[in-house]
Amino acid sequence: MKLTILGCYSATPRTNTNPTAQVLDIKNHLFLIDCGEGTQVELRRNKIKFSRIKHIFISHLHGDHFFGLVGLISTFRLLTRETDLHIYGPKGLKEIITLQMKLADSWTNYKLVFHELTSKESQCIFEDDKVVVHTIPLNHRVYTNGFLFKEKPNERKLNITAAENKKIDVAYYRKLKQGFDVVNEDGKLIKNETVTSSGKKSLSYAFCSDTLYDESIIPIIKDVDVLYHESTFLEKNKKLAEPTKHSTAKQAATIAKKANAKTLILGHYSTRYDSLEEFKTEANKVFDNVELAEDGKVFEF
Amino acid sequence: MKLTILGCYSATPRTNTNPTAQVLDIKNHLFLIDCGEGTQVELRRNKIKFSRIKHIFISHLHGDHFFGLVGLISTFRLLTRETDLHIYGPKGLKEIITLQMKLADSWTNYKLVFHELTSKESQCIFEDDKVVVHTIPLNHRVYTNGFLFKEKPNERKLNITAAENKKIDVAYYRKLKQGFDVVNEDGKLIKNETVTSSGKKSLSYAFCSDTLYDESIIPIIKDVDVLYHESTFLEKNKKLAEPTKHSTAKQAATIAKKANAKTLILGHYSTRYDSLEEFKTEANKVFDNVELAEDGKVFEF
Repeated sequence: MKLTILGCYSATPRTNTNPTAQVLDIKNHLFLIDCGEGTQVELRRNKIKFSRIKHIFISHLHGDHFFGLVGLISTFRLLTRETDLHIYGPKGLKEIITLQMKLADSWTNYKLVFHELTSKESQCIFEDDKVVVHTIPLNHRVYTNGFLFKEKPNERKLNITAAENKKIDVAYYRKLKQGFDVVNEDGKLIKNETVTSSGKKSLSYAFCSDTLYDESIIPIIKDVDVLYHESTFLEKNKKLAEPTKHSTAKQAATIAKKANAKTLILGHYSTRYDSLEEFKTEANKVFDNVELAEDGKVFEF
Repeated sequence: MKLTILGCYSATPRTNTNPTAQVLDIKNHLFLIDCGEGTQVELRRNKIKFSRIKHIFISHLHGDHFFGLVGLISTFRLLTRETDLHIYGPKGLKEIITLQMKLADSWTNYKLVFHELTSKESQCIFEDDKVVVHTIPLNHRVYTNGFLFKEKPNERKLNITAAENKKIDVAYYRKLKQGFDVVNEDGKLIKNETVTSSGKKSLSYAFCSDTLYDESIIPIIKDVDVLYHESTFLEKNKKLAEPTKHSTAKQAATIAKKANAKTLILGHYSTRYDSLEEFKTEANKVFDNVELAEDGKVFEF
């Protein structure tokens, strides 16, 4: 699982900081999460192949999370894309995009599939044989969802010598990898765990931005491997977090601790702060394994 | 008159090239012309004071000419702007912007005034005591206007010694600068030109992008000082210019020559070409005074 941060600052794009956008490479899927202004340029800068993006997840309709989407869709068209593009985001997104395509008289040749979200409960919005994606309802000024990406359980590791010794026909190896018990050539039931061991651990990633500190997300993200949680402010500016419905670094760390996350990545920083280290220091008082998102940074898990 | 090119490439923003946007500093107005994605970052990079922009002119609703507008409007809001912002552009622009503000529940505190254009004839869209702006109807795939910015005639230069010798009361000096004849202390009519000389020449700037080669704009831009005319293609790719309704460098130069422009600036280059010099070479075969727009370049006239 590889996470590339394209932008991790709040509010507006600046000369050296970009608004929210990140790419999650998981089980051969390349998921784009949020798409602030300039995201297509950051994709180029980070040498990410446009054609591999087939699913885009938009958390909410504040500009710093989606103003780059219409341009990216338009660039896909100019690049003569043919593959379907699936977009998951709040109701209204389709109207915004199609209105602009209509007025520009520039319809895409590829199929644009909008999956508009309105539910206030966590729901499954994508699933195939390798990955499942659920929404994480967040508490922000407008309707907002985080997203939980989970790898499905990996196949169990088969001990071929043990399987041969137990006289299991090769036709059953697939079933064994999937965790089933099988019957051997002598008609005897062989317990799966006697010929297999656990496969590679399946990983999960939770993206939570933008949100007020809200413990109601904890059951949804419980035991997540990697949690990206917004930390727009430091505790010294906590009075700004509440009315704007953002979080502090300490609050992000508290959510990570209570959810038993393994790693916390902080981001969505207000540009009022000179150094990001203060965010880490503050979060570390509550939670050990804290990483700082930075534009262009790549995390591998 | 100072023109800053923020972006001058067609189609999509790239790592080192920006879509169309430019700033015209004329008689203390700072006019923003077109606003492709990333324009706000280019404004910062070129150290242009956001608050000085009070008028934005959008040629047409293709993304490379206006996808940066909604973000700029939003950033003005975050910067707690209070001054009115006037936006001139095709009908539909207001709907695009207000739909996004509505869905983000983020209305501006400052007054946003849309001047939507629908006329296919050249019309005056802005005028004060120093500058007048007319549309230049262009021939593109969607409804498109160029813009002609003209300084009003500058005041005549008063020869104070001559005026004193002619016994003209100082109360009449303003009238003299405005070009009127006046009566002196002896009741005698004094011809204006005997005590004044021509003031500084008034300048004009025509922005023409995007457009097919179309001679019908010539009467509108006749004798213009500086003409920016799109040259998406070179003659060797002329067959691409017609269906996409763009121009070649040679065609831009032909318009400049027939309109008796003093200077031609080329821009809106397709990114298929390695060198911009070819555009200049091609245009120079028809017209002498050719300049190449480049991102970040400043022209002073």
